Amino acid sequence: MAKILILGAGVMGTAITVPITDNGHTVHLVGTHLDGDIIEEIHESRFHPKLRSRVAATVTPYTYDRLGEALQGADLVVLGVNSQGIDWAAEMLGPRLSPHIPIVLLTKGLAGDRQTLYILPDALREGLPSHYRNQVQLAAIGGPSIASELAALRHTCAVLASSNQALLEEIAALLRTPYYHSWTSTDVIGVEVCVALKNLYALAVGLVKGWLEQSGEADNGAAMHNTASAIYAQALWEIAYLVEYLGGQRRSVYSLPGVGDLYATCQSGRNSRMGRLLGLGMSYRQAKARYMPEDTVEGAELALAIGPTIEAWIDRGELDGAATPLLRTVIDIVCHDAPPKIPWDAFFAGV
Amino acid sequence: MAKILILGAGVMGTAITVPITDNGHTVHLVGTHLDGDIIEEIHESRFHPKLRSRVAATVTPYTYDRLGEALQGADLVVLGVNSQGIDWAAEMLGPRLSPHIPIVLLTKGLAGDRQTLYILPDALREGLPSHYRNQVQLAAIGGPSIASELAALRHTCAVLASSNQALLEEIAALLRTPYYHSWTSTDVIGVEVCVALKNLYALAVGLVKGWLEQSGEADNGAAMHNTASAIYAQALWEIAYLVEYLGGQRRSVYSLPGVGDLYATCQSGRNSRMGRLLGLGMSYRQAKARYMPEDTVEGAELALAIGPTIEAWIDRGELDGAATPLLRTVIDIVCHDAPPKIPWDAFFAGV
Repeated sequence: MAKILILGAGVMGTAITVPITDNGHTVHLVGTHLDGDIIEEIHESRFHPKLRSRVAATVTPYTYDRLGEALQGADLVVLGVNSQGIDWAAEMLGPRLSPHIPIVLLTKGLAGDRQTLYILPDALREGLPSHYRNQVQLAAIGGPSIASELAALRHTCAVLASSNQALLEEIAALLRTPYYHSWTSTDVIGVEVCVALKNLYALAVGLVKGWLEQSGEADNGAAMHNTASAIYAQALWEIAYLVEYLGGQRRSVYSLPGVGDLYATCQSGRNSRMGRLLGLGMSYRQAKARYMPEDTVEGAELALAIGPTIEAWIDRGELDGAATPLLRTVIDIVCHDAPPKIPWDAFFAGV
Repeated sequence: MAKILILGAGVMGTAITVPITDNGHTVHLVGTHLDGDIIEEIHESRFHPKLRSRVAATVTPYTYDRLGEALQGADLVVLGVNSQGIDWAAEMLGPRLSPHIPIVLLTKGLAGDRQTLYILPDALREGLPSHYRNQVQLAAIGGPSIASELAALRHTCAVLASSNQALLEEIAALLRTPYYHSWTSTDVIGVEVCVALKNLYALAVGLVKGWLEQSGEADNGAAMHNTASAIYAQALWEIAYLVEYLGGQRRSVYSLPGVGDLYATCQSGRNSRMGRLLGLGMSYRQAKARYMPEDTVEGAELALAIGPTIEAWIDRGELDGAATPLLRTVIDIVCHDAPPKIPWDAFFAGV
């Protein structure tokens, strides 16, 4: 039986303990500096307050100051921090981790420096000490996995991505249960770009909830599914373009990481909630400050992280702005507090 | 200004009159034998009882016995019958229609004869008199268009498909308004296969509503979006396979006709309602007879129409059954009253 260390005791980091412990493995669950209360609560009651679920007896909670101790004998590290915690995670793990222990990222996002965009496995690698940057094996998980649903044993399908097929099979075997179904893929770029962008585009689809609330149901009872569906379709059209542009493969877009994960993300969650607030007429800054000051809205964080790079690429003619009108709309909303105006006539360029 | 004849006064045939009349064109709206009450109601009150919307003064309602009269001077025919009405429509139009008048199909479906599947424009053409079968120009409309929403002027995006680009531009010009956005495509097979199959697959995604209702919310409040999203992703994966198999193009799958239309269809409508009933544990026959005896459930009609052909193809080794496990599941449910068991491990073959 394997010993898994999970860094980050948020809802996803904790939900993934469910299939792992059901398969008989033990987990050391290490909270970040944001997770102090959660770790204490698990110690006292074996209950995760945000996931609203019991935590198995074979999960040992740790605070991050005991990371070195928790790492002893670990066969695998799972990263469950949010996208802003990647650098911190690299700093924490770097001096304490043996390079032969693989790392699996649950974290989704992209990083940009106005020249290039990086998928998070590459950003993590960049933050690790140089002597094992090239040795450590990385993998990532993508697909429609709302944490509370996985914790409730709802059927969940995910893709494990890594360039190392043997590692993929190993991790898949650790995770597979009758309710957690997993596939493997060597298209790391495609999977990572899809699962990052879905948060950003879910914010755009979420606008429609706000518009519907504001305009009210029509006299004939009509909602706005046509409108949401068209934005959803444009989102996929742009994700396909960007995945290919960044060197990934379309098959990732048209399966779980792309269409599947965006679908789930549009049905609920923080990105949708932010979209709704924007659709109600608030600027991003107002909405964030007034209603979601403590929440990490990953789609907005992504717009902030990649917006300057995307804009620089378009300015320099390196990326075709006409191919990504919805991306530019969301970047304008989040980075420049622009109102959410959908450029319908610019949709589906080249269809 | 053009004169448009619409055959079929159901919700979609009537909703499309909204952009057409907003553009200043006149419409002759001809009810089928199923639409008698509707035509009478429009005559009396100018209100469509199922669409729950007013009908413009420039729409003249007709019963089908006056089709010949209504057709006089028509520039374009729009077909708004349901999939079972295609043969009837061909019989009605054949003797009365000049072959230089193009026909646009709103109707979605496929026909099968155990040897071949036919898209509906081809099935319609087959039913027309031989002397103008090869002359008449056909087009079709696909994309996420819930009729009541279009009638309420919600932003709606659609694709017009035809092999005749000049015709496409003409029809697009008739329809385009600030709320009805349209694109054109010469991939008739791709568009038609997508918009037909979405009804069948929406039935599968709809199962999850029944399962959730039956199992109830989890202790932690979890719904089943992961499960629905995985089925949605598999649906797209199979639609992509089938579109290519039948000679269509993937770009139709990854834009409005595929991902967009399936998204809208999964959010509401009769296919979802039937899926829910099946998820609650009823057989297809029970659910249809008890709760939806008067409803045309297009996804189930499609399974009945193509099921024998798909099964014959798989038996003869002409279609790879491993590529379409979800299609076979829905065919088993509808054609053979099988229980709705999702073959998770057969999903995403070749991902």
